Amino acid sequence: MANKFVDLATLKFILNDVLDLNSLLELDRFSDHDSESIDMFLSSVFDFSAKELYPCFREMDENPAHFKDGIIEVHPQVKTIMEQSGELGLISSFISAEHGGLQLPLLVHTAAGFIQECANNHAVGYAGLTQGAAELILEFGAQELKDTYTPKMLEGKWGGTMCLTEPDAGSSLSDLTTSAKPNGDGSYAIKGQKIFISGGDHPYASNFVHLLLARIEGAPSGTKGISLFVVPKFRPDGKGDYESNDVITGGDYQKLGQKGYCTTHLVFGENDNCQGWVVGAENMGLKYMFKMMNGARIAVGRGGASIATAAYLASLEYAQERPQGRRVSDHGKKNANEKPTLIINHPDVRRMLLLQKCVSEGSLYLVALASKYYDLSIAHSDEAEREKYHLLLELLTPIVKTYPAEMGSESVSNGLQVLGGYGFCSEFVLQQYYRDIRIFSIYEGTTGIQSMDLLGRKVTMANGQALQHLSGEVMQTISKALDISELKSYADKLALNLQTTQKVLGHLSGFAQNGEYERYLADANMFMEFFSKIVMAWLWLDMAVVAKHALIKGDKTYSEEFYEAKIHAMKFYFKYELTKTLSLSKILMDEDSLTIVDEKEVFVVK
Amino acid sequence: MANKFVDLATLKFILNDVLDLNSLLELDRFSDHDSESIDMFLSSVFDFSAKELYPCFREMDENPAHFKDGIIEVHPQVKTIMEQSGELGLISSFISAEHGGLQLPLLVHTAAGFIQECANNHAVGYAGLTQGAAELILEFGAQELKDTYTPKMLEGKWGGTMCLTEPDAGSSLSDLTTSAKPNGDGSYAIKGQKIFISGGDHPYASNFVHLLLARIEGAPSGTKGISLFVVPKFRPDGKGDYESNDVITGGDYQKLGQKGYCTTHLVFGENDNCQGWVVGAENMGLKYMFKMMNGARIAVGRGGASIATAAYLASLEYAQERPQGRRVSDHGKKNANEKPTLIINHPDVRRMLLLQKCVSEGSLYLVALASKYYDLSIAHSDEAEREKYHLLLELLTPIVKTYPAEMGSESVSNGLQVLGGYGFCSEFVLQQYYRDIRIFSIYEGTTGIQSMDLLGRKVTMANGQALQHLSGEVMQTISKALDISELKSYADKLALNLQTTQKVLGHLSGFAQNGEYERYLADANMFMEFFSKIVMAWLWLDMAVVAKHALIKGDKTYSEEFYEAKIHAMKFYFKYELTKTLSLSKILMDEDSLTIVDEKEVFVVK
Repeated sequence: MANKFVDLATLKFILNDVLDLNSLLELDRFSDHDSESIDMFLSSVFDFSAKELYPCFREMDENPAHFKDGIIEVHPQVKTIMEQSGELGLISSFISAEHGGLQLPLLVHTAAGFIQECANNHAVGYAGLTQGAAELILEFGAQELKDTYTPKMLEGKWGGTMCLTEPDAGSSLSDLTTSAKPNGDGSYAIKGQKIFISGGDHPYASNFVHLLLARIEGAPSGTKGISLFVVPKFRPDGKGDYESNDVITGGDYQKLGQKGYCTTHLVFGENDNCQGWVVGAENMGLKYMFKMMNGARIAVGRGGASIATAAYLASLEYAQERPQGRRVSDHGKKNANEKPTLIINHPDVRRMLLLQKCVSEGSLYLVALASKYYDLSIAHSDEAEREKYHLLLELLTPIVKTYPAEMGSESVSNGLQVLGGYGFCSEFVLQQYYRDIRIFSIYEGTTGIQSMDLLGRKVTMANGQALQHLSGEVMQTISKALDISELKSYADKLALNLQTTQKVLGHLSGFAQNGEYERYLADANMFMEFFSKIVMAWLWLDMAVVAKHALIKGDKTYSEEFYEAKIHAMKFYFKYELTKTLSLSKILMDEDSLTIVDEKEVFVVK
Repeated sequence: MANKFVDLATLKFILNDVLDLNSLLELDRFSDHDSESIDMFLSSVFDFSAKELYPCFREMDENPAHFKDGIIEVHPQVKTIMEQSGELGLISSFISAEHGGLQLPLLVHTAAGFIQECANNHAVGYAGLTQGAAELILEFGAQELKDTYTPKMLEGKWGGTMCLTEPDAGSSLSDLTTSAKPNGDGSYAIKGQKIFISGGDHPYASNFVHLLLARIEGAPSGTKGISLFVVPKFRPDGKGDYESNDVITGGDYQKLGQKGYCTTHLVFGENDNCQGWVVGAENMGLKYMFKMMNGARIAVGRGGASIATAAYLASLEYAQERPQGRRVSDHGKKNANEKPTLIINHPDVRRMLLLQKCVSEGSLYLVALASKYYDLSIAHSDEAEREKYHLLLELLTPIVKTYPAEMGSESVSNGLQVLGGYGFCSEFVLQQYYRDIRIFSIYEGTTGIQSMDLLGRKVTMANGQALQHLSGEVMQTISKALDISELKSYADKLALNLQTTQKVLGHLSGFAQNGEYERYLADANMFMEFFSKIVMAWLWLDMAVVAKHALIKGDKTYSEEFYEAKIHAMKFYFKYELTKTLSLSKILMDEDSLTIVDEKEVFVVK
């Protein structure tokens, strides 16, 4: 079975050697699992991915999901994927056993999702959103809602979606207008339109359970008046059967990438016969939604990491097989009589591949780390520790959502470039990854929104405690690295960057203290770029420490070359990426304010 | 007539106010033209673009050119485009009058091409390559070749192509194997395959004239044994008619973007009946080709600038019309009762738009400047001046080829991001620009190759004289800016960057002096990024100087806001882009050598 889409060795290194998955299994919540059962689980995920997901990946792009005669057509393999996702426990993997889930750590769920998405990023969302929707019901819904909807969802028989966006309210949820009116029997009459609904309809689920945000009549304006509803496509008819619930598929969106993953336009209650059931309390919709947001954003980060990884491996394979040109020799001339060299031997190609390696493996570690923080935040026996990991997760989340998407795009673009003219051709897969990954900077809150979240909320959260915890974690890595002579200078660089972060935040907070909040946040995007680079440097130094310890101890889990390659990648990352914080910090502390609107027109004028 | 694809005010500002097009018209070669006739010419180009090119732009993407039953089908509008390109003189615009051309400055040809490509980057290549092929024949071919082929090409009745790449020789031309064997009658028997041939075949030209590189039997190996041939699809049969020349269209390439512009696979001499005629002397093929390379690379830069511009204007229009969210108020809260603001008022959206403005207008100035250098290098009355401008052109060319492509891609990606989820949808044009522009980093020598050219050949060229000339030009702008108090600090920054360039080159040249050429060139790509940012800062400062002078003089050619906007964009460029040279110079002077191959395997290992 071909394994060209995922690097399992690095995945296992991160899970076991770097993140010590076994330590999680000692917690009560996960004590039913051991490393052997988890290996088996991941191995079944890999088999499923290689057999069912990877082979149809390019077909799903070439035959986009589309709206025709009132229904959405998708690749027929979605049927098998939904079924097996249910059977293998992929939908229920980290859901509690009491609700019928496997109760695995999110870390393992993330690893499983990563393998699947490396194989096929178009396919995984169908089951993934179903799991997210089920989770919301299980977490906040009444027992009847749970009983009615979630078993079939976890089995992969029914699909689930998140219905947030409306035509006139994209990221601005406070403006949403979908309405809910009490019917008097506990249900609500739902009326409104939702757009950009991923996996919103297809022939391979016998029902859809939409988790929908709407405003109950008379509710407060803004975000305080938003409630969360379960709105099924088919509702129970009270006689043990199901009847239509007036949810109409109005159309779809054709897209740049992820074409096999349908994006739909849904119309609720056009015939005034659409019923919804509120999840939890009225007007608490956004709160519930936000409680699930960290998980959803980790999933988006995982998607970016997956595509970057698959693209890296595809361009690496090409570079290892394609002869072209000659190395520059020491006399500065090329010898045409020499046989052409493999392009992987050209420094510029190596630079592109190393960047890809750094971004994809670093992103994987980042999403895995956030997943572990999530696990510790819910399962650690000590409450203070739970709170600490919760804060760490909150702080990392916008970065987890953003870095694999933004740098993933750049990484995939480098992968395409490795192939030269062939990279631009449909015959090769790189152009597909290039298109697919572009949505990840938009999904679940754009990079701009994540950046405002990071700078506006997270770094100041709990009086800066989240940031303090993170600094503490980084300092631990630095102190380990300082003990290893080969790593010392890198540890110093990282420490210096921590100091620069303080300086930058000190500078910016001056604006906030002056009440100039718009100015404080104006360069949030730059801060995201700056701070992400430092966080990623920490993760790479951490991997290098683990690799170096393994080399020193003579650990034979992986080859010496494997460990050396991690250290090499860390050095590459520090030279080519971390160095950029120098400029970014300077930009952030520049006095010119150039992006805040004033009377002057600065765009097209004559 | 809609004008949403090009900013004519900025184009005219650059042509007339910044580059003083009139000064070119004083040179003998261009003295038949005056500013009025040029205005009329550009105005006819704009009408043609708005009427014939822009309306079919999206259709050409949605209905890709493709190979079917042995022929290439393209959008039927290509017929009109070829015809009118001939009639309007677009193909012959800068070709000498003695050869039937308009003998306009390349600067005007570039402006004309820019307008057309802003309207439709898929369509322009059909006539553009025809012009390039005709130019090669006119410059180096025998009279009979000129008479036989170029009139119909300049009229747009026959198409022209460049046939360089072969399946096993992409950028490495020394490895090409297409063969030419003297037939004894002055013609050669051609045999071989060429791939990635743009505009290589379609129904709307009655003949194709391929300019093809091949190796004459017994010629030296490597690049010294390559000759240039004219190989028509239909050859004169000696009786006043034409007969098939055994050039078979073997297939095409489906691509990420520029789908309306066919990319073909051509097979020459499969039936041993393909004749070619050598252009100029044998074994001089690469030299001839390289003499045309500057022009070709300016055209590629122009394409990048055009797409970046059209994308900028499209995202600007969206941002000026789309309400969403509220500005961050001074108390740091958003008020949901306020009406949503237009997204152009959000700092992060303004940042993205300003980046687009800087990249697209800066790129336009860059390609226009290179075109003017070209004009001066061939038409200046003083030989020393011609040589000076030739060197300036040589030095700028790799940057002209690279910056609009690389930063253009980033710019278009920002444009897509401005639209949020809609940016990813096929319904909006941004995703098309995002795909289209990606080829420009590959066309005519990849970014890696341009970077090696810049650092390996151009900066050291003529004992560094090219670089000295450029420094001289930059110093002139700096000295003008130093006289204007608002611009002084920016002039200082630019001067500092010139010094840093010297430092970086001093550091790198140490490797070359040691004979470590591979090391010298290993970070050529970083040097390209570094040096381009400085060159662009110079151009922006120069535009700001011109704008400021106009404001001081009370020049009413454009509005005050127009001039102020240029100065604002300059400041933005210096803050957000030029500052990056700080990190780039540090990377370039870093001692770690991490991309040169050695025995250690640094990629996928277990």
